[in-house]
This record gives sequence, structure tokens and C-alpha cells, in this order.
Amino acid sequence: MNSFGMKLRFSTFGESHGTALGCLLDGVPAGLEIDEAFIQSELDRRKPGKSEFETARKEADKVEILSGVFEGKSTGTPIAMVIYNTNQKSKDYSNIKDIFRPGHADFTYFHKYGLRDYRGGGRSSARETAARVAAGAIAKLMLRELGIEVFSGISEVHGIKADFFDYEQAKKSIIYALDAKAEEAQKAAILEAKNRHDSVGGVSRVVIKGAPIGLGQPLYYKLDGVLADAMMGINAVKAVEIGDGVLSARALGSENNDAIRADGFVSNHSGGILGGISNGDDIVLNVYFKPTPSIFQEQHTVTTDNKEVDFALKGRHDPCVAVRGTIVCEAMAALVIADMLLLNMGSKMDGVLRYYQS
Amino acid sequence: MNSFGMKLRFSTFGESHGTALGCLLDGVPAGLEIDEAFIQSELDRRKPGKSEFETARKEADKVEILSGVFEGKSTGTPIAMVIYNTNQKSKDYSNIKDIFRPGHADFTYFHKYGLRDYRGGGRSSARETAARVAAGAIAKLMLRELGIEVFSGISEVHGIKADFFDYEQAKKSIIYALDAKAEEAQKAAILEAKNRHDSVGGVSRVVIKGAPIGLGQPLYYKLDGVLADAMMGINAVKAVEIGDGVLSARALGSENNDAIRADGFVSNHSGGILGGISNGDDIVLNVYFKPTPSIFQEQHTVTTDNKEVDFALKGRHDPCVAVRGTIVCEAMAALVIADMLLLNMGSKMDGVLRYYQS
Amino acid sequence: MNSFGMKLRFSTFGESHGTALGCLLDGVPAGLEIDEAFIQSELDRRKPGKSEFETARKEADKVEILSGVFEGKSTGTPIAMVIYNTNQKSKDYSNIKDIFRPGHADFTYFHKYGLRDYRGGGRSSARETAARVAAGAIAKLMLRELGIEVFSGISEVHGIKADFFDYEQAKKSIIYALDAKAEEAQKAAILEAKNRHDSVGGVSRVVIKGAPIGLGQPLYYKLDGVLADAMMGINAVKAVEIGDGVLSARALGSENNDAIRADGFVSNHSGGILGGISNGDDIVLNVYFKPTPSIFQEQHTVTTDNKEVDFALKGRHDPCVAVRGTIVCEAMAALVIADMLLLNMGSKMDGVLRYYQS
Amino acid sequence: MNSFGMKLRFSTFGESHGTALGCLLDGVPAGLEIDEAFIQSELDRRKPGKSEFETARKEADKVEILSGVFEGKSTGTPIAMVIYNTNQKSKDYSNIKDIFRPGHADFTYFHKYGLRDYRGGGRSSARETAARVAAGAIAKLMLRELGIEVFSGISEVHGIKADFFDYEQAKKSIIYALDAKAEEAQKAAILEAKNRHDSVGGVSRVVIKGAPIGLGQPLYYKLDGVLADAMMGINAVKAVEIGDGVLSARALGSENNDAIRADGFVSNHSGGILGGISNGDDIVLNVYFKPTPSIFQEQHTVTTDNKEVDFALKGRHDPCVAVRGTIVCEAMAALVIADMLLLNMGSKMDGVLRYYQS
Repeated sequence: MNSFGMKLRFSTFGESHGTALGCLLDGVPAGLEIDEAFIQSELDRRKPGKSEFETARKEADKVEILSGVFEGKSTGTPIAMVIYNTNQKSKDYSNIKDIFRPGHADFTYFHKYGLRDYRGGGRSSARETAARVAAGAIAKLMLRELGIEVFSGISEVHGIKADFFDYEQAKKSIIYALDAKAEEAQKAAILEAKNRHDSVGGVSRVVIKGAPIGLGQPLYYKLDGVLADAMMGINAVKAVEIGDGVLSARALGSENNDAIRADGFVSNHSGGILGGISNGDDIVLNVYFKPTPSIFQEQHTVTTDNKEVDFALKGRHDPCVAVRGTIVCEAMAALVIADMLLLNMGSKMDGVLRYYQS
Repeated sequence: MNSFGMKLRFSTFGESHGTALGCLLDGVPAGLEIDEAFIQSELDRRKPGKSEFETARKEADKVEILSGVFEGKSTGTPIAMVIYNTNQKSKDYSNIKDIFRPGHADFTYFHKYGLRDYRGGGRSSARETAARVAAGAIAKLMLRELGIEVFSGISEVHGIKADFFDYEQAKKSIIYALDAKAEEAQKAAILEAKNRHDSVGGVSRVVIKGAPIGLGQPLYYKLDGVLADAMMGINAVKAVEIGDGVLSARALGSENNDAIRADGFVSNHSGGILGGISNGDDIVLNVYFKPTPSIFQEQHTVTTDNKEVDFALKGRHDPCVAVRGTIVCEAMAALVIADMLLLNMGSKMDGVLRYYQS
Repeated sequence: MNSFGMKLRFSTFGESHGTALGCLLDGVPAGLEIDEAFIQSELDRRKPGKSEFETARKEADKVEILSGVFEGKSTGTPIAMVIYNTNQKSKDYSNIKDIFRPGHADFTYFHKYGLRDYRGGGRSSARETAARVAAGAIAKLMLRELGIEVFSGISEVHGIKADFFDYEQAKKSIIYALDAKAEEAQKAAILEAKNRHDSVGGVSRVVIKGAPIGLGQPLYYKLDGVLADAMMGINAVKAVEIGDGVLSARALGSENNDAIRADGFVSNHSGGILGGISNGDDIVLNVYFKPTPSIFQEQHTVTTDNKEVDFALKGRHDPCVAVRGTIVCEAMAALVIADMLLLNMGSKMDGVLRYYQS
Repeated sequence: MNSFGMKLRFSTFGESHGTALGCLLDGVPAGLEIDEAFIQSELDRRKPGKSEFETARKEADKVEILSGVFEGKSTGTPIAMVIYNTNQKSKDYSNIKDIFRPGHADFTYFHKYGLRDYRGGGRSSARETAARVAAGAIAKLMLRELGIEVFSGISEVHGIKADFFDYEQAKKSIIYALDAKAEEAQKAAILEAKNRHDSVGGVSRVVIKGAPIGLGQPLYYKLDGVLADAMMGINAVKAVEIGDGVLSARALGSENNDAIRADGFVSNHSGGILGGISNGDDIVLNVYFKPTPSIFQEQHTVTTDNKEVDFALKGRHDPCVAVRGTIVCEAMAALVIADMLLLNMGSKMDGVLRYYQS
């Protein structure tokens, strides 16, 4: 239940304030060059404490590969990666030991399991997503060999929307903003919330370019379904759109259908997916993050023995989880696409024959 | 890949114009009373041809149970159900044999598999969802024993929104409208599109009442993630929201967090899910359907050998797939909840001890 | 739990005296010619009532394909096959309704599920294996395209052993005997047991020829492990050997290691599998079937309310289940190999590149 | 593919001469006391270098828990355990870099993956089984709470058989021998082989006591099938028997059926499993290990570019892998039983109701 993917399968472990977190990535084809510097650079994009727009917790998020790589290449065996926690301040959490923080998983974990690791949310902390980014980096290395690339950026913060989507711009932005013009207002919204001890929501837009036609396994491991699961499963995500998403439900068929010409699709309302299978066009997703539930204003809640209490949280938190979340969206998208590429290899009998007879 | 669920697992088969379609439902606990009349009544809610708001194809959708039930009760073995197709008019499709219908899976199936059953979309047809409704009906029987119920209705058609959500009203409405006041305008929008040989999108709202705290298996079989997959995997769905969804990404943390008091949550922005686990409150979903891609206006497309062609589709189609789609959403929601109930049973050691020692 | 395989996955349903039994075969690559006559011919090899060495129950075991095949070829969608029961004599079982037959699953099913379909063992009957043979026939069609063939035969009945293994001879033998010289004594042993209202055990030997090097996914979906599961899961099987099996545990390393020369392995003690992966040599299995538990002598048992009772079973049963069981072994072996072929396609990065770039 | 189990799922990683090996154990119910000393003591039973009957490689096999345990109890999240390699002598392997050792996975890994970590067999080394023992120890802790215990010992070495099976005796024996009378001859056989630079095979007998009726998920996750997979998947295992195994194939039905009386089964030919489900009696397995393929006599083989070569292996190896292998059998058996216990909890509707309504 802590695993994702069918043929390229990753499993993660670790708690926010435990010894370490990490992942196993199983199913990487042998012979892939494992560029450790690239993996670290991806972790660096997600790591906390880089700016005032993020939590003050500083973690080097230094990744160590324990297995599955020999002489710089994947061997076909599971790649285990571990990241030791270094900057835990678990004492910050002693005051919430017996309190359910509103909007958090404290309440549900406690009731599901009968006990909980209260230190920073334990396993439910977004800190776990570092492991996804590490696994996603290897998926990206694999996609790169096939000419597939995943891009993302922040399209919206607290309702302030990007007018256009410049993924190169996003790489340079400290908040991964897609639209340099909207960026200042978006940053201001984050800081204003932060100063009020509050937080804001935001939206990540993800695009996958270069994916071949045919990815996605109908009918219950569809590309759109699995992407939706992958994104909705990221901490704080509350909505996922493919292509036009919500807007397509307000459109007419004559507006929403993408006409096809000899050189491809004329438009891309579908977001590159038809019938759960990639159509060769850009795959487009919008991922909606709620505001960080950890705010420093006084809130109403109960204790583990159901006594009402009003309290103000302490600790270190991102004022807008969407910012670093967009890096996690990229990682998850890369992992899904890589998995689908491997799964798709058995779809045609002539492909199977070609594989074994050459 | 044509299966869904971990512990309660269903697999479907069948094409729109093939001999039959059906499903296997595996993992139903033994001793559940299988009310065949109820299963048929659920299929009747989804079956086509009931009104002018639906396709003219008439199918009795008569379900037959082939296995897994003995003397009216489930035996713990797989329940196979089959629905024979009776009203195929496959000739309607001979003219699209070599044409990719815009907005359809024709293009992707053909390229993925190298061939396709072009008759009514073959496997990609929404006709397959009858099998989901049959399986979902049994899941509902199981949920009912535990006091859990799934409701749904149409909240929006072509941008015309319900002001409130009356699930009992929806049961009586021919288009499953949640708001009797909005219903007439919604119906008119469907018929207007239909008369123009066009189609409209719509939104289904789903609520699950009575689910216990603790459903959902973190971190990669989360309740919200799996529901998102289940819904996004329904034909024509392009967006899924949990709770406030898109709106939560525009809110402040102080607005979006649900305060907790001794008698429960004060609000339900979260849609009943925190950290991927049910919190005991109503579980709320919005599911966005694009307009039916099958429209009778002339469209631009290409043939299987990539020649450009303009053509107007023939055949029988729903002018708004969201209408019957809402019944499928209910079925999928019921299947997810039932699966999660079974999976959750091993979450605490004292629960395991209690199970085996009593 | 009623499914087997990862990438080529089959699920079966049905009870011995229910309406029908059948299977779904999911993951067959598109474009495979589905030779229905061959599928039926495989079922004919397994079907009961062909001789005095088998049960007297006569079933045509006529298979009907409901989906997944279009114009004679697989479409990549699930192939559903159904076999209607025609010769149930359920009344034969009314006297065992409340009795646990020794050696049968009656006892365990009743306690696991709290109820049971007592008619002919319900789901636990070997009648279910007809569905495996149907699925296995399609796997064989797939293997044939790749030059892989599965053979089997009876090597031993009640301790009477074949001196050599002639798989062509086995095809002609009414008891699938591998050694024509041993056949008469083996037949006599079966009939003698039958005449004494008793039954005998036997051994099936299975060989897979032509499998490429590299099949098997270490470390927990190994070729030998999965074959062992596949065989041990066949009704009445109590032991499985790969290659020299039991004898290898009595050998020295210097005797048991297979030397390698430029043209291949010098011997095949390993049974074609090293480290859980096929080595290109013949894959060899021995599968040990216990005697049919259904015998007509008086036996000691208890009723469902735990009262002791002595009774003699009635009904129609195979005096040696190994005979028809060998056909099931072939089917399961074919399904495992086909699954492994598909899984193996992602093992090398250069294979992935070759697949997508050609 | 490096994972095992459905509801209690473990995944392992690591190579013989890599940085570390370890495992993730997912699905442990929350609230189980995690006795680290016990886990270490299980590893100590398997660890190499304890006597002249084992390899000379000395590894402390010190296990470190990285996650999933809080204040001494399982939290319901994945338990990651890591064992750092300390006594690699990888130089020993430089001479086999380009040589396939007969009887080893060198040949198959190289061809499957196109490259291999030649140091001590890399991932295919039995060193990986340390991770299984760590996971199995936690499964044993879980079973203990339910009164279930797993025992094992060596019943046979190079054909020298135990006359009776004393599991307490086995715990005291340096070679885990079940029969103190046979032990001396068995030890002598091992040392004689060792002195001749050869190796011997052996047999482990495993018994599970106290398992409730009802474990095993028919028809394709049967208890016997999954145990067979679990055991056959252990390095060097070539045959698996349940109960009477091979002998049952030589018996009559009247001899092999276990009669039932009011106080239980009169005999246990079935090995405690009927129809793939536990019957409440002792579950009995025999596991056959081939002789260690690593021998120091000269052998015929080829290089990776298929040149014939005769060579004598160097390095440190167990003269009889069955000895330490029996500890691995116990671990795998414990993991299978624990998984089946969790899976079985949803088999009856009244059990589900009881779970949620209490």
C-alpha cells in the first residue's frame, strides 16, 4: 500500500522526524546510466528552506544509493535510495502530541491505527515526497532516452492566474511561476498570508512532451485515471484536471472535440489523452493544492480524548505547498509515464515477435 | 488491466457490439444476501433509451448471474455476471470503419493495438459501464449492511448549476437532477444541443454517507487517489474534485481548514478525507464529464491511412453522457468504499486479535 | 484471488454444478489469431467421460468466446470464455450436504466461508480447471508464434514409473502415458483401484521447449517459484519438482552442476532454470497428484455440526486425477511462460529503445 | 518483482557486495510490539561464519530499523530495515568477472539484463535472504500474538535422513539437525564434501503450529501454492512437498485420505491443507535444497563471449546451503501465514459486520 506502479514500481518509507526516509525503485530496465548528480539536482529543487516562500526547516536532502547500480548503470535489480533526516526539531511537536491539527491527517491516522507518530505528521508529512522526487528523477533519466520530457510550474496562487505558461521561465523562478508577469502578485499573496500566520492554495500545471501514442492500459489502468491517482495522492491536492478539465464539462461537443488533420490534432482540449490512452499530443494536467493546513492562527480542535481545545500551532511550514509540490507532480508524472511505457510493450503481437526475434 | 480494486476486485469484459458484456466480482465476503432484483434495478437506472435525454439504443440490460451465489447468498467465490447485447446495429458503423471519430478512442486504440473493433467503439464504448453498475450494485448491498449509502445526481449541465443538492429529488428526476429548479433549464440545454446535432457536458456530484473513519490505505492507495482514478477512468470524465476541490486552491488555510469540536467537524471543506483517509464525515466528489464526442455535425478528421476527410457521424448517442454517467459514478464509489472497508480490517493489531480470538 | 499472472492475467469463475464456468484472459497482445478449433481441441483433451479411466460424468465442455476477438484476431481487450454446465446431477450430492468428505475441501470451505455449495464440491471441484485449459490454449497459440511448445504426459501411476518420456506417445495414449511399456501396468493399477472403489495417485511430467533465455523476474516472481505456485495450485497436487528436484538434494555439487560448453549446457539437472530465470534449455517439471479423495469405500468423518458419521460416497469420479490433470499442468505452464515473456520485455534499456524507436 | 505478499508485503533490495541490503515490510498492523532483540536473534541464526559447516565470510548482519516503529510499536507504516555489508572481499571475484559459474545465476542474469554485478553473484546471492529473515522475524512476532509458531530443521543431508523430527533439538544443533542420532553422520557428510572441495544437498522440514482453519485464498492464492512459491523462490531450492508430497502420489485414496472425528483429523497426510486452505492441523512442508553450486573443483564453463574455459572457483561458500537455508524457510513460512491471516479477515460477511460494529 506504500507502493505505486505496475511494472516500474516504487515503494517509499520513512517519517518526517524518523531516522531516514527513502524509496525502492523496482523495474528499471538494466543498462540505464544513473546520473547521481541529476538525481541530487532534482532533490535540490524540492528541498525545503531555499527561500522565504518555503518552510524554514533546512534539510540537505542528500540522497545515497544503496543498491541496483553497478559501474554507473542500473542492473535491473531494485534501486534503493535513502535520505537521512538531519534537521528534526521534534520538540516543536510535543505540544501537539495529543491534539488533532485541523486539516491534517492527525485525526484520521490516530483513528485508523490507534496510535500515531505525532512528530511533524510522521508518515503523513509532505517530507515523504522527497523519496518520490528521487524515484522520479530516475524515471526522467529513462524518459530522456526516449525523447520524453516532463515540465511543470505554478499557474495560480490564491486565485492569481498565469496568463500563459512558460516552462523555461518556471525553472528560473523561485516559486516556479509560469508567468513572470503574474509572479510578483503571486509572491506577494504568499508573503501576505505568511505574515498573517495563514497560508494560501495554488495550482500546478504539468505537461509531458514527446510521449508516444498508445500509453495507458484500458480500462482500469488508464493513463488519465492513473495520473489522477498519482496527483490526488500528493499531499494537499484536492482536484485534478486532464486537458480542459472542468471547462470541458461546460462546453459543447462541437467545441470540445479536437479535429484531426494529416499532421495531427488541430487543438488539444483532450489534454493528449483519448479513451485513457495517449494520443501523441502534449499530455496536460492541472493539479490543485489546498492551502497548507499548518497555520499559526488560533484554531478550534479536540484532543485525542475528544476534549475541545483552541490552540495556535508552532513549527516550520510552507506558506504555499503548491510551490514545492509542483516538483513532486513532475516526479509522479514521470513515474507514471515510464511505467506505462513498459506496460505498453506487450500490446501488439507483432511487437512481441519483433522483440524476441531480433 | 481490466480489473479494479485490491481486496474486492472486479474485472469486466465485453464490447459494445459483441456477443455480451459482463464482469467478475471477486472478494465478496460469503453470506451476503444477493438481491438480484436490486442489481437489475440499478442496471435499469443506467440502461439506455429511457427518455429523449438519452441515446435511442434500447437495451434491456438483463443481467444473469453465472456463479458465486448459492441459495441466494454469496459463497465467497467470484460472482460472474453477464449481459447479452440485443440491440446492436453494427451496420451503423460500417461507414466509420476506417475513420477516427474526433474526441473518441478510435485513434488511440487503433495505434496502440494495430487494429480495432470499430463497431460502436468496441471496448472503449461507455456500454461497458453496465458491468460496473452490476458490480457496484453488489458493493451497495454490502455497504447497506454496514449503514453506508452512496448518493449522486447531476449538479450542472452546460454550465447551468444546481443551487442545492437534493439526492432524493435526483432519484425521481429523469436526468437525475439534484435541483428541481435548475432541472428545466438543464433539460432544455440538453435538448437544444441535441436538436443542433451537438452535445453538452455536465457534472455529477457524489456523496457517500455513513462511512467509518479510517478508510484509505496510505500512501499509494489513498481513498482520494483511488476515488480519483475510479472516476477519471469513467468514459468522458476530465476532472475530479474532492470536497471543495478547485476552490480550495483559491482559499486561505484559515478558511479551508475544518475546525473540530467534540461532536465532529464543524465544516466539510475536505470532502470527508484527510491524509487520504476518511474522517467520518460525508465523502464528497464532483465528477466532470465532457460533452459526448459523438455529434452529428460535420467534423474534420483522418482515415486510418491518414487521409483527411470531413464527415458527419450517424448512430445513436446520448446528448449528455453525464446523465447516465452519474449512475456509474455511484457504482464506482460503492466499489471503492467496499474495497477500502475490507482492506482496512488489518490496520490495527488489536482488531486482528479480536477477529481471530472471538 | 481468483486471478493468476501479472501481465497476462486470467481470472476464472464457476462452480461444478452451477450454471456455467469460464474465464477472462486479460493482456493477450492484439493481433494474435484465435483458433477456436484449437481451443476446443484442448478442452476435448481434458473433458471428462472419454474412457473407463475417467469419471462417468459427460460434459461437452463446449467453449464460447464472448469478447476480445474481432474478425478472428485478439483485439488487446479481455477475452471472456464461458462453458455452460450440462450434465449436473446435483441430486447425487444431497446426501453429502451436511457431511465433510475426507480429503476434500468441504471442511475448509465451510469453515472459511461459513457456508458452502456442496454440489460436487462447488468451486473447489477440479471441474474449474476447464477454464484454465481454455485460457492455456490461447497462451499456447501465443507461444507457438514464438516457437515455444509445452508437452506433458503421465510418468507414474501408483508407483509404476515410465522408463523414458515420449511426449508424442503421450498424445496418443488414453491415459497420456509417456512410456508405452509402462502404460499397461499403469492402466491396470487404475482399474484395479477403481474396482475396489478406491483411487490412485500419479505424476505428470511437463517440458517446455524453445523458451528463450531470460524468462523469470527475480527475486519474488521467479520462473521456478511461479511455476511451483501454478502447479501446486492445481487440485490434488502435493509436490512439485524443477529439474532433478528431490534427487538434487541427495547429490554432490560436482554431480549436480551443469557444465557449460560453447554450444550450451552439457546436462540439465537444473531443469532449465538458474537463479529463477530460464537458461534456454528445456524447462522440466514433475507434478505429483495425490489419489482422488472421492472414493466409494466407507470412510470416517463428521457432519457440519461435528457429529461422527461413517459413510460411503456416491457420484462420478476419476479414479486417477493425474490423468486429466496433466492437461491442466500444460495449460498452467503455457500461461506462466506467456506471462513471463511479456514481463521480460522491459528488462533491458536497449530493448526498450529498440521497441519504441523502430 | 522484488516484492512478495498481498496484504503483508515485503520488498527487498541489495547485492552481496554492494553497500547494504535490506527490506521494506508494508502492512504490519499498528500496535505490534517490535522486539528488536528478537529480530537480531533471528538474523544471528542465519548469519554466516558461525561454524565450520558454513561459509567463512563473517558478517555481523546488524539490522537497523529506519522507519515504521514509534515508541517500540509498529505504526502501520512501512518498516524499513537495513543491513550494511561489512566483510566484502570483492577482489575474490575479479577472476570470475567474465566467467559463468556452473549452477549459478551468472549466465541467466547476464543474458537477461545484458550486464551483471559479478561480485559474489550480486543480487542472486543467498546473502539477500538476510532481508527475508528480518522481515520474517516481524511476521513471527505477529504470529506469536495469535498463538501460531513456525518450526524447522534439517531432516536430510546428502541422503542421510532423520528418523524423527525434534524441533527443539534442531534449535540446539549447529546444523539445525532434527534428529540427534542422524546429526553426526550428516555433519560428517558435509565436512567430507567440504574437504573434497565439493558440496552437498539437504532437506529442510518446516512445521507451522496453531494456524486457524481458513487460511488461503482460493483459487489462485492458495496456501499451498503460495507456500510452494515462497519456498521454491529460496536460493537453491528445487522441490517442495506439502504433507506426504511425493509419497501421496504413490498411495491409494483409502490410505491418503485423513479421516475426521469429532476431535479433529485422525492423520495428517494432507499436511494441514485441503483445497488450498488450512484445516487447523499442523502445516507441514519439505523443502529440497540442491548442493551449493560454488565448489572448488575444476569445472567446465564458458566466458561471457562464449569461449570455453576450465577453472576452479575461489571464495568463501557454504558446503551445504540447506543448513542456513532452513532459517530462511521459517521466515518465508511466517510471512506467508501472516499475509494469509490478514487476507482471510474479509472472507465472511458476519466477520466484517462484527469488525465494524464492535
